[in-house]
Amino acid sequence: MPHIDLPPNMPGIGSAFAFRPETAAPMRALAHVLLFESGQTTSLSSRDRELIASYVSSLNQCYFCQTSHSAAAANHVGGSWELVGSVCANPTSADISPKLKALLAIAGRVQADAKTVTAELVQAARDEGATDLEIHDTVLIAAAFCMYNRYVDGLGTWQPREPAMYDAMGKQLASAGYGRPFDGARDDQSR
Amino acid sequence: MPHIDLPPNMPGIGSAFAFRPETAAPMRALAHVLLFESGQTTSLSSRDRELIASYVSSLNQCYFCQTSHSAAAANHVGGSWELVGSVCANPTSADISPKLKALLAIAGRVQADAKTVTAELVQAARDEGATDLEIHDTVLIAAAFCMYNRYVDGLGTWQPREPAMYDAMGKQLASAGYGRPFDGARDDQSR
Repeated sequence: MPHIDLPPNMPGIGSAFAFRPETAAPMRALAHVLLFESGQTTSLSSRDRELIASYVSSLNQCYFCQTSHSAAAANHVGGSWELVGSVCANPTSADISPKLKALLAIAGRVQADAKTVTAELVQAARDEGATDLEIHDTVLIAAAFCMYNRYVDGLGTWQPREPAMYDAMGKQLASAGYGRPFDGARDDQSR
Repeated sequence: MPHIDLPPNMPGIGSAFAFRPETAAPMRALAHVLLFESGQTTSLSSRDRELIASYVSSLNQCYFCQTSHSAAAANHVGGSWELVGSVCANPTSADISPKLKALLAIAGRVQADAKTVTAELVQAARDEGATDLEIHDTVLIAAAFCMYNRYVDGLGTWQPREPAMYDAMGKQLASAGYGRPFDGARDDQSR
């Protein structure tokens, strides 16, 4: 039960975005640049960016964000539900590159206490080939999901437990990014 | 010493914004809407919004954000350094309205663990006259500063300890908001 009068039948962050379009616009734009667009123009893929988002959301135990970004990661090239599950369970043993493992270690520190990011952790990521931009984007993705997760949970948004809905959302996010609202929830709920 | 090659002589978040203008634009826009513009168009003033930002930044122990937003709060109508100091030290005994105290209690929960925001805390804010929009914006300001704080500290940005620089920054933020970069740091450092 949401803490404020959010529009009904809209899952998670979508209901908060609909309630407050003025803040939704920059929040969507940030996710679009950081997770979607930059995955096509930089050396850190959208799959990897979504894996970082899912991992941080799992640390924050935000069901809606973890599941929707896991779905996005799973629907990107090279992604699968098994892969994202193994990353959230334990990044060090997941079937991902050493560079991504080093970036996830940084992301985990940002989530817990950003002051605990050390020069050694950053150097370890560089030693695996991470660029300054990739390190920057990792820190910002982790920081941003500490916002999105708190927004979703702090308002008590509706977070349905329907895998098919999240998979549909993940397909849209992986193909079109964060530019437009997800409109599959209403249909899903009416079944 | 920043963890990546950020532009020199720019304090705190400004250096990260200059490094990555693509993500800076929506991050600035969010702060502008949430802290500045909405303070003029809704019943929660910019001073009160900046007090929430300062309080959350103090809980996250982010020196740069706490000091710059304290400066903004102090420079808004009805603000002072004494007031913001007392809010950060203990909101319940500060010279602020019962409504703002109730909103700060919600903000504190969002910072610590957003799942601990209860219906009772929200009702307490409503009983003091808080609207759904004010409750929404409080949750989002608290969530957003869990991002900004982590971004600033996770990158190891330069955070000078010069009160005059923060006061100049606060004057700009209180009068013009977050639309343009703060350009007073270079002068300040050259003294």
